[in-house]
Amino acid sequence: MGCYAAAPGAFKNPSSQVLDIRNRLFLIDCGEGTQVALRRNKIKFSRIKNIFISHLHGDHFFGLMGVITTFSLLKRTAPLTIYGPKGIKEVVLLQLKLSQGFTSYPLYFKELESKTATVIYEDDEVMVTTIPLKHRIYANGFCFQEKQGERKLDINAALNHNIDKAYFNKIKQGGNITLDSGEVILNEDLTEDPPPPKSYAYCSDTAYKPAIAEQIQGATMLYHEATFLDSHEHLCKPTGHSTAKQAAQIAKDAQVGQLILGHYSTRYGHLNLFKEEAQTIFKNTYLADDGAVFEV
Amino acid sequence: MGCYAAAPGAFKNPSSQVLDIRNRLFLIDCGEGTQVALRRNKIKFSRIKNIFISHLHGDHFFGLMGVITTFSLLKRTAPLTIYGPKGIKEVVLLQLKLSQGFTSYPLYFKELESKTATVIYEDDEVMVTTIPLKHRIYANGFCFQEKQGERKLDINAALNHNIDKAYFNKIKQGGNITLDSGEVILNEDLTEDPPPPKSYAYCSDTAYKPAIAEQIQGATMLYHEATFLDSHEHLCKPTGHSTAKQAAQIAKDAQVGQLILGHYSTRYGHLNLFKEEAQTIFKNTYLADDGAVFEV
Repeated sequence: MGCYAAAPGAFKNPSSQVLDIRNRLFLIDCGEGTQVALRRNKIKFSRIKNIFISHLHGDHFFGLMGVITTFSLLKRTAPLTIYGPKGIKEVVLLQLKLSQGFTSYPLYFKELESKTATVIYEDDEVMVTTIPLKHRIYANGFCFQEKQGERKLDINAALNHNIDKAYFNKIKQGGNITLDSGEVILNEDLTEDPPPPKSYAYCSDTAYKPAIAEQIQGATMLYHEATFLDSHEHLCKPTGHSTAKQAAQIAKDAQVGQLILGHYSTRYGHLNLFKEEAQTIFKNTYLADDGAVFEV
Repeated sequence: MGCYAAAPGAFKNPSSQVLDIRNRLFLIDCGEGTQVALRRNKIKFSRIKNIFISHLHGDHFFGLMGVITTFSLLKRTAPLTIYGPKGIKEVVLLQLKLSQGFTSYPLYFKELESKTATVIYEDDEVMVTTIPLKHRIYANGFCFQEKQGERKLDINAALNHNIDKAYFNKIKQGGNITLDSGEVILNEDLTEDPPPPKSYAYCSDTAYKPAIAEQIQGATMLYHEATFLDSHEHLCKPTGHSTAKQAAQIAKDAQVGQLILGHYSTRYGHLNLFKEEAQTIFKNTYLADDGAVFEV
């Protein structure tokens, strides 16, 4: 919903993304104006149960209080969990206290301070691991991994063996079937491999950090910040950011499926320059844009 | 720049106004998205030296951190002073600390906790007094008063008396002139009264409070919140808001020049209903709107 660095403009929103994994929505970062961007992109607020904040720079979290407060105005009852750097709870609770407000729903915090990759969220279908980044302040990326889904039932094979529907779930979960005759039908004769589980790695903000590539080997899609072009590479160190070229190097080394660039400095006129630069190293590169939708 | 209550929408900005008094700009309230609204309305950031926050509900101050941070990104050097309820300094400094940030300019706070009208700002041309409001939490309106300007020199009268230009400033400041001949020319023969000083009273958010009318007697322009129509008057007490009718009653009792309504609940389809209701009591009523400009 937003992919620009630093100060927002009328048509340049700061960082915020919605990730939809099998109809579960995850909000990643929450710059100022995110609640308006959610409305504009017709994202139903009530479907967001978890918000992940990479770091406490304003362009990644100044919209959080607005989201939390508006959810309350709308009389939300479903729990909401915020994952973010230590200190985020204090900021939110202080502002709720000063407004003598409270949330209409249970609000949970999972504060992060570990500097090693840590599993911070897990349900029956999705696992989220932090990706320690290299920025001016403590920052994490997040790797969202689908779990292996059920095996794909070959319905005709099952019918040919006169297997009762009652066993279909067992088959999808990998089990063999013993017929009344005593004959054993192997699972491999009844199912196909499920689609490989997908993964999405969000890395913003960060300087070039080769360890990221090691951690996210084979990710289906990588979003990596590209604040600068190579011509401004000297600005990366003092600011803790990357160039498009460096983002592409991470994508190449990690052998990811696709690379999405974002967090562009607003100093550049044409975003295509980022794509062109990255594609000299990693061909399958796309440009994030406010309101853009990508399928992983 | 924004005049809607509660949660912002794509085309409904929360409270924020810029008041221009003889080229001094005062920012009043700062809901989420104010920095973008400032850009959209082509307000030069560097001209804002003072920000007044009425109270610590999000729709009046969640845009403040963004403004403070963006001013820094733009390498502002001019001091900025924030006037607002006690606690505002803690919220701002906590977030600056967590982002390991600092401002590129001196940032001052004047925290308010008095429940009586207090002069909180004064320079050679303008004086700002708090207007204690009646809301769910501690809230102040602000009365901006021009000071009496210089007397208006009748240039022909001065020339007829052969008065040297060097004395013009003295005359504008009300002095008499003694000619070389010893003749005294009275100031009243050389000047006209200056235009009467104007005043602007900002009252949001507040329930109906007759004392406001006493304090702002004869104000040139009043902005008074009108969250509800009279048909929802029963909601005023629990929420600490006013109806359009009540806003008009304050305007009438205070004998102000003009009334501007704002802070509309988004439940109503047509803003004209607010105007029509208010005009049954106070004729000279106008509707605030995002981006609207009014001359006091």
